[in-house]
Amino acid sequence: MPEQPVLSPARARITALTESGPFQRTIIVLIVLNAIILGLETYPAVMDSWGGVLEAANAIIVGLFVVEIALRMYANGAAFWRDGWSLFDFFVVVVALIPAGSGSEVLRVLRLLRVLRLLSAVKSMRMVVNALMAAIPGIVSIGALLVMILYMFAVSSTVLFADMRPEAFGDLWSSTVSLFRIMISDGWPDLVVPMSQEAGWIAGYFIVFNVVTTFIALNLFVAVTVEAMNRRHEVEADLTGGHGEERADDVQSEVLAELRALREQVSRLEAATAQQ
Amino acid sequence: MPEQPVLSPARARITALTESGPFQRTIIVLIVLNAIILGLETYPAVMDSWGGVLEAANAIIVGLFVVEIALRMYANGAAFWRDGWSLFDFFVVVVALIPAGSGSEVLRVLRLLRVLRLLSAVKSMRMVVNALMAAIPGIVSIGALLVMILYMFAVSSTVLFADMRPEAFGDLWSSTVSLFRIMISDGWPDLVVPMSQEAGWIAGYFIVFNVVTTFIALNLFVAVTVEAMNRRHEVEADLTGGHGEERADDVQSEVLAELRALREQVSRLEAATAQQ
Amino acid sequence: MPEQPVLSPARARITALTESGPFQRTIIVLIVLNAIILGLETYPAVMDSWGGVLEAANAIIVGLFVVEIALRMYANGAAFWRDGWSLFDFFVVVVALIPAGSGSEVLRVLRLLRVLRLLSAVKSMRMVVNALMAAIPGIVSIGALLVMILYMFAVSSTVLFADMRPEAFGDLWSSTVSLFRIMISDGWPDLVVPMSQEAGWIAGYFIVFNVVTTFIALNLFVAVTVEAMNRRHEVEADLTGGHGEERADDVQSEVLAELRALREQVSRLEAATAQQ
Amino acid sequence: MPEQPVLSPARARITALTESGPFQRTIIVLIVLNAIILGLETYPAVMDSWGGVLEAANAIIVGLFVVEIALRMYANGAAFWRDGWSLFDFFVVVVALIPAGSGSEVLRVLRLLRVLRLLSAVKSMRMVVNALMAAIPGIVSIGALLVMILYMFAVSSTVLFADMRPEAFGDLWSSTVSLFRIMISDGWPDLVVPMSQEAGWIAGYFIVFNVVTTFIALNLFVAVTVEAMNRRHEVEADLTGGHGEERADDVQSEVLAELRALREQVSRLEAATAQQ
Repeated sequence: MPEQPVLSPARARITALTESGPFQRTIIVLIVLNAIILGLETYPAVMDSWGGVLEAANAIIVGLFVVEIALRMYANGAAFWRDGWSLFDFFVVVVALIPAGSGSEVLRVLRLLRVLRLLSAVKSMRMVVNALMAAIPGIVSIGALLVMILYMFAVSSTVLFADMRPEAFGDLWSSTVSLFRIMISDGWPDLVVPMSQEAGWIAGYFIVFNVVTTFIALNLFVAVTVEAMNRRHEVEADLTGGHGEERADDVQSEVLAELRALREQVSRLEAATAQQ
Repeated sequence: MPEQPVLSPARARITALTESGPFQRTIIVLIVLNAIILGLETYPAVMDSWGGVLEAANAIIVGLFVVEIALRMYANGAAFWRDGWSLFDFFVVVVALIPAGSGSEVLRVLRLLRVLRLLSAVKSMRMVVNALMAAIPGIVSIGALLVMILYMFAVSSTVLFADMRPEAFGDLWSSTVSLFRIMISDGWPDLVVPMSQEAGWIAGYFIVFNVVTTFIALNLFVAVTVEAMNRRHEVEADLTGGHGEERADDVQSEVLAELRALREQVSRLEAATAQQ
Repeated sequence: MPEQPVLSPARARITALTESGPFQRTIIVLIVLNAIILGLETYPAVMDSWGGVLEAANAIIVGLFVVEIALRMYANGAAFWRDGWSLFDFFVVVVALIPAGSGSEVLRVLRLLRVLRLLSAVKSMRMVVNALMAAIPGIVSIGALLVMILYMFAVSSTVLFADMRPEAFGDLWSSTVSLFRIMISDGWPDLVVPMSQEAGWIAGYFIVFNVVTTFIALNLFVAVTVEAMNRRHEVEADLTGGHGEERADDVQSEVLAELRALREQVSRLEAATAQQ
Repeated sequence: MPEQPVLSPARARITALTESGPFQRTIIVLIVLNAIILGLETYPAVMDSWGGVLEAANAIIVGLFVVEIALRMYANGAAFWRDGWSLFDFFVVVVALIPAGSGSEVLRVLRLLRVLRLLSAVKSMRMVVNALMAAIPGIVSIGALLVMILYMFAVSSTVLFADMRPEAFGDLWSSTVSLFRIMISDGWPDLVVPMSQEAGWIAGYFIVFNVVTTFIALNLFVAVTVEAMNRRHEVEADLTGGHGEERADDVQSEVLAELRALREQVSRLEAATAQQ
């Protein structure tokens, strides 16, 4: 929103409204209510007796979301379309408007994305997600390393074990799923044990895979976690007036500047004394 | 206990008693004894031969707890009711006094909370729990994110898989339990594998769920752990006389102050030399 | 490449070529293409209809790799043989040239190592791997501790349980695999539970093993992760012009030097004033 | 070894011998050899053909260990008995001397402790173990918290589920083992799932247990790991000449001292100028 030089009075008033605390709290309440309704709709017994009421409440909430988005689009103008969170809200509301009559289950699932609006509506959660997102570029290399190793093991497992266990290593996708289970340590009794009884080295192959991938995955997770924590601390530090460390650096630079000014002063004094 | 301006001599003496080392150590011994008795009571053979003795010991210990709480209530006055740990001790002793005759198993389990009195009685454990508690506000947002994602996946899994696997995804609570198992990697052979043999994309759905929730849970745990460790270090630093870092900052501010005073002094000197 | 005093014009031009961006990007594209082809070759249906095309593409890519390696060997001269990454690339290409006709599955798996060329070709991945490698020496002791404890438990489990469960603890290697499963928590229902029903202490034996090894493994992983992160940060700091901390140290040394010069100046001034 | 004022020439020579590099490397080789022999002895086929040779080698190595310990006892005198590692070596050699004829399997397992002598013989491993040991006092409180919660859940699970699943929760020890499996996420399909189908809240009970204990265990592990890493860095810093941070502190104190001396000097100068 940097360039909003002259707002018409109506637009300024609507901006003030959409950015006011009560308005935003109302939206949060609506999102939570909507999430509860979507949960209740999974109980057939509840749907039988309260189905109509829930559908109506759902429609009203979606209507209010449409009004909210329209207001924000009018208030923010072009800036609306440049903000990732606004686009996300817009997309979610558009999905909600697709008639449920065409209603495959995929659509019902997509409607659940509405719950994610909580992320954009609650400021502290938006910050957490922003921090996690911002941490991603720094760890793309480790993630690519993990994907590459998974891919290599998927191909080699398919080559080696497709005949021995076609239901687990018959094609690349089955191998990937089986290897994922071996990586998260939930596939040894039914996958590794029977195979390693046929040939002892197979257990070694999967132990190496488990150790290497666990290690890289841990590396990846810890890197993102630390990165995200640093980012949160930086944001907090910005809010409270700068890092202690940076302040210390500033103090030191000031010390050095003072010291140099002082030496110049003393030099002048020395010259003056010598002249006398 | 900040406002205890004038204590009657009796109250002062009881305060001194309840805060003395031997008194507190006796209470700790009683709590541990009580915990051992509660454990022994689970063995039917022990109950047959020693049941009466254990019941009597139990009653005596509860009696001593009542006396202890009464003393502390008298000694601390209104402050007793403002301290969370005191309220916890009071609640535990009241539960112990509910006649076991009404005795459902729930009551027997609630009586176990007495063991938790160890937390309030041993100072170093109270500090650990306080540190963990104090770390909670800082991570509410990440926790809410995790709960929200679990909820979304629970609703969508119920929508998608209720017909396919009613015993695992038949309603919201069953779905939550099944997803928790998939998250902690102890549900793949009986949950994910048979379902992914019916449709390959289901394995991908659960892999995404596992990776996302594992990552957020790790983020959450690491954030609390680091927060709690920082808090413990701060407490330790307070006890040993301040952070090294803060001390360094103090030294630097002192350097800067000295330096400015010095420059003023030299300026006066310069003026004096110029006058001559 | 430190000693390359006078390059012939041809050699200089080839060095410039192999180190140019487009050349290196072409190689990366070839490696990725090759990886995709190796994956497609695992699908029998794809091989039936496109087998010839894939084989041809494979041969062309290997041919280009040979040309690339030859150019780099000529350009870098003896330095080629002293660089670990170059040797790795050379080894991978030599394996690719072994005639597939002799083709056991081991050879097909070894050909997959070509995908690892991505590590040497993409700079940021080479840095990640270098950081992980460089972290190894610092943690050899913890790794040796883990291997030693695994070995001790493997021998003692074989001694204790070879008769009870020959298929799981019949020899050292079987015991190692079973213990690995108990360590990564994927072997309790079929390994530990039936054994601990025969003798209660066995569960305790494996609980101790699980706790000790999990702890040392975590220690090991965290040590490597932190070490590798520090190394990455150091490299980044080198690129951006030195650590903040080191800069602060430099500033302080400068402050001290300035201060000493100043005192000498004032001392001279004092001497001059005293003379007057 | 602080008090060894006057060593007889023989004792000094033996001290020099036992602390020399070749002597210590020989011992390490003997320990590794011994470990390999203990491993080979688990193979019946190897024992049939090489049993006599292995037994002899074993006896020779134990004999050499006895000589080594005797030399070190003579060389170090009373100091031998005050060093934990020496006592450990002594205990291990004494166990090795118990005649194998009395030979239960427990004795064969105890003889494996000889492998642990590697810890005392290799300096870098001794440092790792010392660091881990030194980290323990700082985390006793968190460990006690974890044990207490495990105990409370073990008692309450026995109370609640002894009738429902006697083989898993019939007594305190069985409950502890079952809960340990639920904590490390390797007991849900056979423990939690059938029970939660009888009563839905049971899954919630175990989810709470899993989350709370996982969290405290992680807290415990991370605390020890960080503590141990700090300790290792401190030892390294001691070897390389002090922490950077401490050096920075020293520089700053020096700056402050210089500055104060300077101000005094300038004050004297001011006084001298005023007098003129």
